[in-house]
Amino acid sequence: MKLYRKLSSSKKFRAEYGLFVAEGLRITKDALLEKGVAEQLLLTETAAGKFSDELFPVISRNVRVTVISDELGNKISSTQQTQGVFVICRMPPDRSISFSGDGKYIVLCNVRDPGNAGMIIRTADALGIGGVIMSGCCDLYSPKVIRSTMGSVFRMNIRTEDNIDKVFDILKNAGIRTYAAVIDDGADPVGSFRFVPPSAVFIGNEGNGLPADVSQRCDRKITIPMSGRTDSLNVAMAAGIIMWELSRV
Amino acid sequence: MKLYRKLSSSKKFRAEYGLFVAEGLRITKDALLEKGVAEQLLLTETAAGKFSDELFPVISRNVRVTVISDELGNKISSTQQTQGVFVICRMPPDRSISFSGDGKYIVLCNVRDPGNAGMIIRTADALGIGGVIMSGCCDLYSPKVIRSTMGSVFRMNIRTEDNIDKVFDILKNAGIRTYAAVIDDGADPVGSFRFVPPSAVFIGNEGNGLPADVSQRCDRKITIPMSGRTDSLNVAMAAGIIMWELSRV
Repeated sequence: MKLYRKLSSSKKFRAEYGLFVAEGLRITKDALLEKGVAEQLLLTETAAGKFSDELFPVISRNVRVTVISDELGNKISSTQQTQGVFVICRMPPDRSISFSGDGKYIVLCNVRDPGNAGMIIRTADALGIGGVIMSGCCDLYSPKVIRSTMGSVFRMNIRTEDNIDKVFDILKNAGIRTYAAVIDDGADPVGSFRFVPPSAVFIGNEGNGLPADVSQRCDRKITIPMSGRTDSLNVAMAAGIIMWELSRV
Repeated sequence: MKLYRKLSSSKKFRAEYGLFVAEGLRITKDALLEKGVAEQLLLTETAAGKFSDELFPVISRNVRVTVISDELGNKISSTQQTQGVFVICRMPPDRSISFSGDGKYIVLCNVRDPGNAGMIIRTADALGIGGVIMSGCCDLYSPKVIRSTMGSVFRMNIRTEDNIDKVFDILKNAGIRTYAAVIDDGADPVGSFRFVPPSAVFIGNEGNGLPADVSQRCDRKITIPMSGRTDSLNVAMAAGIIMWELSRV
């Protein structure tokens, strides 16, 4: 229990143990279905009665199962009405994305909001994006990011690389064209050109966009044409529209 | 103060008085800039000192201004760290959307999550959608919806019409083609055809999508092709991609 709580609240603790947590029936099932991810399943008494038919067939023998009281479930839950299903997962070894000639990638620079980061990962999964690189972002393994990915965190290729020079090195070495998503009248409007794969699009911070030195190092600047006010697209929505355009190449 | 709190928590109370509330510097400024919207501005002592230069030039003479204590500001705030800027606004008379021959419209059916509804309205504003019809959705004037629209609620044409038969009547009378966004292999993939304006796309509920009788009444069924799992796009993201495709016609 202490372990679960500490993993839930502390990034440092998560990194030290190489573990993270998730809550809810659906994401727990996703974790159980992924090889070598789930370490321990925690079920409240109520949840054990209610969901065992659904969960037990997918529990492999390396996963420990613990039944806890409903009160304890309410205590460790981060939702108002818990389903009583919790899982402790092992982080995969830092995933190296295998870059391919027709690959489509997204680089998130300083995206701080866990809901936005999670939604981008979820959308990348749905649209068949080859990998997501996170640089200077919120912690991928925070419960809020995990929750908003809706299980995509277990399926997507994700790499964390805070050093932006290294990000550029990796992409240049793999021969990948880089695009900077900016708010700038002079940039090429998305929809007016075709992405040439392999390509990676850099997406910036919620309030400040991409740092100028990052966008200048990219091969091309692109922008989503808007009829409303320029700051009116949420960063996850902008990333989603760009990934949609990337995915149709 | 009591008025503010009641407006913040009760849909019934909002409907009875025709008023709603918003919190935060940016959205308050948006409200003040919109003619006939803002009724009363509430500022904490700290906010009055800090933001008066920014707010006072846009306050018209019909807006009452009240300075409140910082403690009170913390009490009525729905955020953890309040800016101390609050506004009470008058709902516009039920906005009738003026339908035009090249118009693009979105119909939200049973969208329940305020964050999703707000994000869709915000994106519709950014992408130049002509109007949003809300049918069976969460309350447009709940503080969470207002907040997630980021001010777009004051600029967008929005109509609430819970009776879905009336929605179809309105659209048919205006000669508008109707599209149902569904998860269905047999539907036409978005991106493979051009929307013919005037057109309206129906977007369904987070968990259940569109009711079958609604999608069957639309002229055409459309779907976003996905390489991941079929349920992996969030409803706001799906609506955003569809509005992006609508907007480029």
